[in-house]
Amino acid sequence: MGGLSEADIIQCLTVGYPRRADVKLGVGDDGAVLAPPAGRHLVSVLDTINEQVHFPQGIPASAVAHRALAVNLSDLAAMGAEPAWASLSLSLPSPDPAWLADFAAGFRDLALTNGVALIGGDTVRGPLSVSVHLTGLVDPDEFLSRSGARPGDLVVVSGTPGAAAAGLGLIDDIRPLSLPLRQAFLWPAPRVALGRALNGFATAAIDISDGLVIDLERLVESSGVGAVINVEQLPLAPAAVEIEGAEAAVALALGGGDDYELCFTVPESAATAGKLAALATQCACPLTVIGVISNAAGVELHRDGKTVIVPAPERWSHFKRDPSE
Amino acid sequence: MGGLSEADIIQCLTVGYPRRADVKLGVGDDGAVLAPPAGRHLVSVLDTINEQVHFPQGIPASAVAHRALAVNLSDLAAMGAEPAWASLSLSLPSPDPAWLADFAAGFRDLALTNGVALIGGDTVRGPLSVSVHLTGLVDPDEFLSRSGARPGDLVVVSGTPGAAAAGLGLIDDIRPLSLPLRQAFLWPAPRVALGRALNGFATAAIDISDGLVIDLERLVESSGVGAVINVEQLPLAPAAVEIEGAEAAVALALGGGDDYELCFTVPESAATAGKLAALATQCACPLTVIGVISNAAGVELHRDGKTVIVPAPERWSHFKRDPSE
Repeated sequence: MGGLSEADIIQCLTVGYPRRADVKLGVGDDGAVLAPPAGRHLVSVLDTINEQVHFPQGIPASAVAHRALAVNLSDLAAMGAEPAWASLSLSLPSPDPAWLADFAAGFRDLALTNGVALIGGDTVRGPLSVSVHLTGLVDPDEFLSRSGARPGDLVVVSGTPGAAAAGLGLIDDIRPLSLPLRQAFLWPAPRVALGRALNGFATAAIDISDGLVIDLERLVESSGVGAVINVEQLPLAPAAVEIEGAEAAVALALGGGDDYELCFTVPESAATAGKLAALATQCACPLTVIGVISNAAGVELHRDGKTVIVPAPERWSHFKRDPSE
Repeated sequence: MGGLSEADIIQCLTVGYPRRADVKLGVGDDGAVLAPPAGRHLVSVLDTINEQVHFPQGIPASAVAHRALAVNLSDLAAMGAEPAWASLSLSLPSPDPAWLADFAAGFRDLALTNGVALIGGDTVRGPLSVSVHLTGLVDPDEFLSRSGARPGDLVVVSGTPGAAAAGLGLIDDIRPLSLPLRQAFLWPAPRVALGRALNGFATAAIDISDGLVIDLERLVESSGVGAVINVEQLPLAPAAVEIEGAEAAVALALGGGDDYELCFTVPESAATAGKLAALATQCACPLTVIGVISNAAGVELHRDGKTVIVPAPERWSHFKRDPSE
């Protein structure tokens, strides 16, 4: 593969990971052997990202690797799981060593931050594509799902949704003003600590990588409820408002996608606001109440108490996205 | 994606799987939740197959799906593991419902034969590519690896290596004579039962999907030994000999690849031949002693007791393979 042997590639990708005690046999055989901690359950996720579909050509290799792991960490976060073991399958047309070293560093940095061991995988020739399988750990019956939201629960979102989609549209922009948006697209920070802290508090959770409204629709459908979102409560990224205008920033927040933030529901009580504020501090991420769970099906958008329709954001990106992804 | 929604695709792919008791939450949330059986270890494998790299364009969708699962089952077989849970990530340009239904059936058929539950995954737009993660179960310290072969051990191979590579070269051939070879390529039968039965008997094992010599080189390197293969002992597929000639059939058996057979080592003793014969009957697959583990490094080929060099088989396939895969 290019000038690199498979052994070179594997060496480059797998060096620098501390050994987890629960990994009995790691990279280098036909499979990895793992000793799951007694009494815990596993959470399994597998996601693929393809060049020109999930990310534009030419972004740094480390950002590609970061993204491939982050989308899976975000799924684990939405389940309230503690990340443990990653497998990486990398399809490459013909990489050069510098690209591969940058890719390996991007993957490793995010893995180590999250205590993840790289236990195996595959390197094959093909169009640039990265598949990552991740296993997380939860206590039995102590995980988040999409299906526990109840009427009256508050709807909360982390971070500033819409920032990543704005950043994707500005990926070639060089103004310092747009930097936080580009960063939000290139280096999403999956909300792993938040997800784990939500166990026992949130009634339902989902990650909003496909867009806030689409993903919240999935959550309320799983829960057999509906939701009302007050668009004036959406926590917009200041740079998105400044560059795109308030209306476009709202549209991006509702439908932009690529935000690896969590949307979750919590019971309404006198203690809720205080708990959310404490969580936001503990997890170093903004948490904003944006609406309430209702009895009616679907997601309704309100502004000043009245139903509004917000058109889907225009896709100005380098590549066409398929809404089914 | 095409005329199919993501929900349609997921429904088509995931219908018809009996629920395993250890799957606490299956397809439909951000991740699957699994209860690993107490006291057992897990074996984790992840492999990707790409169109035009691992299989030619135009083969049946069910054969693509079968292959994607079989390559992973074969890795589990080489570890002596019992298959349990599969995740499937499918990249598709723009499928039609008939193609997808055939794909789903091919995956399901092989999964059900092996007691595998489909627990999650991903469907994305992109060039045709399939990644499968598979988890298997083993008793602690009861798994096969590449690293236990000792000088004097016998080298054994299952099936008729070279058949799949011959079949790939004849993929458009319509003669009944070549049918078993085409079948060997299109519908490989991973040696799961054999792998499990080898626990406690084989000293080392590997699957020979990259080619018998390449993979045996990996085994002996991991074990810190070498091997001598007697090429006249190779179990050649009769159709390969008839169509390609004996010399080409030998070259395909040694270097063809795509055989999801096992190569393993067993201690030499008076009881070994009888044990192998019993295993071959029990697992309904030919087992042939083809050589012996030596002290020298690497794999040496012998014919009539003398070292020979067998040139790598010519790649006549529709697509170029990269030896690093």
